Amino acid sequence: MKAATFQALHQPLKLENLADPTPDADQVVVKVGRCGICGSDLHMTEDAAYGCQAGDVLGHEFAGEVVGMGSEVTGLKTGDLVSVIPLISCGHCEHCRKGEVQWCSQFSLQGGGYAEYALTRPNQCIKLGTDVSLADGAIIEPLAVALHGVNLSGMKTGDKVLILGAGPIGLAVAFWARRLGAARVAVQDISSFQEQRAQGMGADVFVVDPENPVASAEAALGGKADIVFECVGMPGLIAQAVDQVKPRGTILLLGLCTKPDTFNSFAMLGKEVRLVTSAFFTVPEYEASLAALNAGAAEPRLLVSGTITLDDTPDVFETLKRRSGECKVLIAP
Amino acid sequence: MKAATFQALHQPLKLENLADPTPDADQVVVKVGRCGICGSDLHMTEDAAYGCQAGDVLGHEFAGEVVGMGSEVTGLKTGDLVSVIPLISCGHCEHCRKGEVQWCSQFSLQGGGYAEYALTRPNQCIKLGTDVSLADGAIIEPLAVALHGVNLSGMKTGDKVLILGAGPIGLAVAFWARRLGAARVAVQDISSFQEQRAQGMGADVFVVDPENPVASAEAALGGKADIVFECVGMPGLIAQAVDQVKPRGTILLLGLCTKPDTFNSFAMLGKEVRLVTSAFFTVPEYEASLAALNAGAAEPRLLVSGTITLDDTPDVFETLKRRSGECKVLIAP
Amino acid sequence: MKAATFQALHQPLKLENLADPTPDADQVVVKVGRCGICGSDLHMTEDAAYGCQAGDVLGHEFAGEVVGMGSEVTGLKTGDLVSVIPLISCGHCEHCRKGEVQWCSQFSLQGGGYAEYALTRPNQCIKLGTDVSLADGAIIEPLAVALHGVNLSGMKTGDKVLILGAGPIGLAVAFWARRLGAARVAVQDISSFQEQRAQGMGADVFVVDPENPVASAEAALGGKADIVFECVGMPGLIAQAVDQVKPRGTILLLGLCTKPDTFNSFAMLGKEVRLVTSAFFTVPEYEASLAALNAGAAEPRLLVSGTITLDDTPDVFETLKRRSGECKVLIAP
Amino acid sequence: MKAATFQALHQPLKLENLADPTPDADQVVVKVGRCGICGSDLHMTEDAAYGCQAGDVLGHEFAGEVVGMGSEVTGLKTGDLVSVIPLISCGHCEHCRKGEVQWCSQFSLQGGGYAEYALTRPNQCIKLGTDVSLADGAIIEPLAVALHGVNLSGMKTGDKVLILGAGPIGLAVAFWARRLGAARVAVQDISSFQEQRAQGMGADVFVVDPENPVASAEAALGGKADIVFECVGMPGLIAQAVDQVKPRGTILLLGLCTKPDTFNSFAMLGKEVRLVTSAFFTVPEYEASLAALNAGAAEPRLLVSGTITLDDTPDVFETLKRRSGECKVLIAP
Ligand SMILES: NC(=O)c1ccc[n+]([C@@H]2O[C@H](COP(=O)([O-])OP(=O)(O)OC[C@H]3O[C@@H](n4cnc5c(N)ncnc54)[C@H](OP(=O)(O)O)[C@@H]3O)[C@@H](O)[C@H]2O)c1
Ligand SMILES: NC(=O)c1ccc[n+]([C@@H]2O[C@H](COP(=O)([O-])OP(=O)(O)OC[C@H]3O[C@@H](n4cnc5c(N)ncnc54)[C@H](OP(=O)(O)O)[C@@H]3O)[C@@H](O)[C@H]2O)c1
Ligand SMILES: NC(=O)c1ccc[n+]([C@@H]2O[C@H](COP(=O)([O-])OP(=O)(O)OC[C@H]3O[C@@H](n4cnc5c(N)ncnc54)[C@H](OP(=O)(O)O)[C@@H]3O)[C@@H](O)[C@H]2O)c1
Ligand SMILES: NC(=O)c1ccc[n+]([C@@H]2O[C@H](COP(=O)([O-])OP(=O)(O)OC[C@H]3O[C@@H](n4cnc5c(N)ncnc54)[C@H](OP(=O)(O)O)[C@@H]3O)[C@@H](O)[C@H]2O)c1
Ligand SMILES: [Zn+2]
Ligand SMILES: [Zn+2]
Ligand SMILES: [Zn+2]
Ligand SMILES: [Zn+2]
Repeated sequence: MKAATFQALHQPLKLENLADPTPDADQVVVKVGRCGICGSDLHMTEDAAYGCQAGDVLGHEFAGEVVGMGSEVTGLKTGDLVSVIPLISCGHCEHCRKGEVQWCSQFSLQGGGYAEYALTRPNQCIKLGTDVSLADGAIIEPLAVALHGVNLSGMKTGDKVLILGAGPIGLAVAFWARRLGAARVAVQDISSFQEQRAQGMGADVFVVDPENPVASAEAALGGKADIVFECVGMPGLIAQAVDQVKPRGTILLLGLCTKPDTFNSFAMLGKEVRLVTSAFFTVPEYEASLAALNAGAAEPRLLVSGTITLDDTPDVFETLKRRSGECKVLIAP
Repeated sequence: MKAATFQALHQPLKLENLADPTPDADQVVVKVGRCGICGSDLHMTEDAAYGCQAGDVLGHEFAGEVVGMGSEVTGLKTGDLVSVIPLISCGHCEHCRKGEVQWCSQFSLQGGGYAEYALTRPNQCIKLGTDVSLADGAIIEPLAVALHGVNLSGMKTGDKVLILGAGPIGLAVAFWARRLGAARVAVQDISSFQEQRAQGMGADVFVVDPENPVASAEAALGGKADIVFECVGMPGLIAQAVDQVKPRGTILLLGLCTKPDTFNSFAMLGKEVRLVTSAFFTVPEYEASLAALNAGAAEPRLLVSGTITLDDTPDVFETLKRRSGECKVLIAP
Repeated sequence: MKAATFQALHQPLKLENLADPTPDADQVVVKVGRCGICGSDLHMTEDAAYGCQAGDVLGHEFAGEVVGMGSEVTGLKTGDLVSVIPLISCGHCEHCRKGEVQWCSQFSLQGGGYAEYALTRPNQCIKLGTDVSLADGAIIEPLAVALHGVNLSGMKTGDKVLILGAGPIGLAVAFWARRLGAARVAVQDISSFQEQRAQGMGADVFVVDPENPVASAEAALGGKADIVFECVGMPGLIAQAVDQVKPRGTILLLGLCTKPDTFNSFAMLGKEVRLVTSAFFTVPEYEASLAALNAGAAEPRLLVSGTITLDDTPDVFETLKRRSGECKVLIAP
Repeated sequence: MKAATFQALHQPLKLENLADPTPDADQVVVKVGRCGICGSDLHMTEDAAYGCQAGDVLGHEFAGEVVGMGSEVTGLKTGDLVSVIPLISCGHCEHCRKGEVQWCSQFSLQGGGYAEYALTRPNQCIKLGTDVSLADGAIIEPLAVALHGVNLSGMKTGDKVLILGAGPIGLAVAFWARRLGAARVAVQDISSFQEQRAQGMGADVFVVDPENPVASAEAALGGKADIVFECVGMPGLIAQAVDQVKPRGTILLLGLCTKPDTFNSFAMLGKEVRLVTSAFFTVPEYEASLAALNAGAAEPRLLVSGTITLDDTPDVFETLKRRSGECKVLIAP
């Protein structure tokens, strides 16, 4: 099969022909339909800390078709379309049973999506319904990362939210913040490349002002934020977030910063700020992210079963006292 | 103006010509565009407990155009399209400032929507954007009632949810439960009139089995519910919900039952069940319900900025290391 | 051995000579030191619902000395003084590992304390330190029941608390409410037998006014309660508690009412009251109750290491800049 | 009056004669009975950051007798014994009404306790009952600081707690952790000066091992901590706490570190740790701390009203069926 493989740090990936994968008894072969390129894939090829080996196939955001499986696999059949959860775990410990697989003692990360075929395990395969595409199946992962962060943040209906970083994670946070009831969602970046996309995904306002990030965000949001989501992963941003959040507010840390960061805990304590960190996601969050892509699933306007005039109101009013297929009837006077 | 007025208990409404309303200094005149007929409007004409008076104009779920206002009104102008929050309150006490207007000491309910024009107050008028219709503005209220219940229920991503009653409130709960991440949503009624609508609004399964409601719901849901939403308001349903919920689960009571209800607290205690009640909604919840109708606001698929082949992957991978308008790029091997 | 055994409903217990118990491989023999008489023991001899059999030995609140054990028992030795948790469970399932044994599928209740010797299991034996007596070991159970209820109630520092029923459970709730930071604790009963005891255990005020329970409690408490603890178990008290609690307050149900109860859910919903139920306790709560009896464990006044005059202040102030055995030094001007 | 006044940085305090204070209309004069010397008082005389001025009288932990007051003061009279809350605030804004005075816009800190008389405001005076001394009244402040931290930490019955720093704040945290139900409480310091005091105040174990703080604390606690309380305020301790806490645990920051601190957010995120900060305390927490010193308030052993033999059990059992002054009767077989 064809695959784009890692060669060495600071070198481009190389297109190679590898042997088609053969599944172990408990493995599944997925013909990759779509695979996302993640920012961390880019970092892996530049930073020795990630420990990539020559020949490795990157790619952990993928969906495809089941085309083979080992003898012990149950619950899947050839032809099933699946999104692959890139979290490897034992599948039966206490954490796994709750779907909190990132805390399983055998936890590791799955790659392999930059290829025609990839090997995975059945407990990582989430079947796709007929109303989602393979492209949809490949963007569930960043949505789930963001949903986990929003869930841990304790966000409430009506909160003001500031998101630092307009990469896929920050944009996915904007989507969930809007969907789960934030009153106002601002996304802040150092360039305006993603401005329109951010608005399409739920942001009310996009802020670019590297000279004056705190004042600009405050003006855009109409005050300090109830919650600041750090979705960049660079030194200095937690300290900035402390300035940008309300007294007693929350900073939710999604960004992975491998360099040591300097911050002033005194300023944080003076405002009684909470710093909450968020790693990966749970299986229910992955499934909820899939459901969010399932466009037909929930249309609130279906409440309305008919519209009538004021003239017809007294009669229709009487007929509504007998239960029928009517639901919410609107009067148009 | 034309209006459909209440005459007497057990009598139809009557179409009448009333004087056009004149606003007080702090009032607003709204030309009704759409007004929902609520189940409680039906009850008011049959049950003396509600205290309707001859000549009253019912209708508290309405949206329309601002066509007049008193001298002290600010922040609104003629021509504004608004949805009217039917909760009258002082507007400046501690509760009002938090938008929890149902706890204001001057709280009462607004009617008047079954007419060409209605009087209201500026703090009850929520402006509609260009992407929502007046019909949308008339269904925000039941959505907000349901959102308040779901918020108070403590529902978490992945929960199994059972909804008793497929009226507008139950269906709106199904919408939010799906949208806010429930793993499985079952709606149970005593007739199947709303089966299709329920599925369109977010239900996975619709249960009708008046003889055997507990066993049927359990089969449909794949177990007892984490949360049961009572959206009927009839005696006996809390007791039924105790049977239908998991040990340590929650019953969220939205249904208004004016008759005394008998229930066995011993059974409830044996399972350590919580019974949480929910009244009306907050202003932020009303606004979040409006935002949910705002179709263009949040499309998760916008994450994807392009799709490439495996052959192109090494080169595109390199270009992605320089920030550009690209966001999530998908590989189609 | 001597034992007081159940004979039949409405008959006194009878003192009998039974064979001394022989432990199974996984059982422990405890020489009973003290055993509490519980209100439910009294009910068991009057109410067929409890299903007592002739020859049964009641008594589930006991402590004593380990005097024998089966071959598989580890972690205990003859002579150990123990309090016996009266909750039988498997000891190794997920619930048992968290100490939430009341949710174990093999859960049942332990009796046998009205005798010279009793059989139990090692996972039910909590060792007593040298600073607690066997009498202390026999009152841990009602304290743990009450602590579980207070924990589930969500009580916060500064809350106003009303307790219905001045039996051992209600009094133990008063103890914990005071200890865990309630601002004001009122106990209400229909007789004043326990007035002094209630005050000694933490109540600020004791209310007896069967004619006018709502108004009297409100006067005594200085307003409606944040939390009402129902510790009686009779019909009508949940409805009364709805009247006695603040809007949006909590009713915590500890009382076991075997009769069906009538209540008005409409009144409850109008105030958005939560009804939370509480069954038994967890093992950590049992251990925390033991620690609470451990008188020497925590004396806040030990903070003070010395008292000085104003004249000595400048010099002592300097010496305090070098760390020493001093802790909080007080100036007495 | 006599007072110990600040002269200059790195200089001893000086005993001086100052004019007796004259109250403004809204002020109270307190004759200081006892005043605690706080660690931050020591820092103020060494660190320019605190901005002390020559002539200032330090001392914010004091109690005494009301000896004078201005014309507008109500609710206090000469002779009242009071503990003074050292938080100055407006007294009537939303925050003040909830007792969360540290968030009042007019918030500042009160000093003046190192003198014979001090001026304060009536809303800062908490009356002392007859069962507490003036010395008790002077140690409420550090207890309240610690209680606020424990409340914000979300500590649950059964948690394992590690406290860094055995100064008054750390020791007071140990007191509350024990009292509020921690399963195991370890205090860690760099010297063993406070070992015995820590045990008297609630610690199970005291750890001193500056070379190997993480391993030693883990051994002493029997695993990583559910909650680490940082009560030192030096750089490096948050990073240490990240190592010492369980995955998904909480670090509660009480220590004030005025120097910038370096920490590795990556390690924190990998364990999904929460960092919660705690500033001052609320008025209800101050009052609850006073109640905790009130020795007679809550004695759990009062539950026991009598002890009987097994021989007497059948008869006493019958008499208990009629309500009397008996409460918990113990059988001693
Ligand atoms: N917690 C988890 O489980 C988890 C999972 C996945 C990813 N992550 C982390 O989440 C972070 C975001 O991921 P991503 O894929 O969205 O990354 P990304 O595409 O690199 O997005 C980060 C964005 O932040 C911008 N940025 C840089 N400095 C900024 C500043 N000072 N203020 C505001 N914006 C700034 C970047 O701009 P430039 O590109 O111009 O610098 C970029 O647009 C990364 O650290 C990633 O490692 C965490
Ligand atoms: N908490 C609040 O703030 C708030 C606000 C608004 C409304 N409400 C209350 O919420 C409840 C629902 O309102 P709605 O407008 O949706 O009412 P609705 O249209 O009357 O819907 C109730 C549905 O439940 C069905 N039903 C009757 N008995 C049932 C049973 N045993 N099991 C399952 N379903 C059963 C009804 O069927 P049939 O019609 O065939 O009987 C009907 O389809 C009402 O009690 C209303 O007063 C509360
Ligand atoms: N949830 C659990 O896990 C759990 C565990 C143990 C016990 N319980 C239950 O908790 C309840 C209390 O137990 P207990 O041992 O403390 O019982 P108890 O000794 O019978 O105490 C109940 C007290 O309430 C009084 N009372 C009766 N009617 C009242 C009213 N209308 N208002 C105020 N007080 C009233 C009783 O007075 P009179 O005696 O004069 O009637 C008695 O003093 C019982 O229902 C018991 O079954 C629950
Ligand atoms: N958040 C708030 O509202 C609030 C209120 C009051 C006080 N505080 C702060 O709370 C902190 C504690 O106050 P305190 O009065 O208890 O102070 P303290 O008396 O100075 O106590 C701190 C203790 O920590 C010890 N220590 C130093 N380095 C350590 C290390 N690496 N590991 C373990 N222990 C170490 C100190 O030992 P040595 O003395 O030998 O160095 C001392 O015994 C201070 O930072 C204070 O400013 C906060
Ligand atoms: Zn596992
Ligand atoms: Zn108001
Ligand atoms: Zn078990
Ligand atoms: Zn204030």
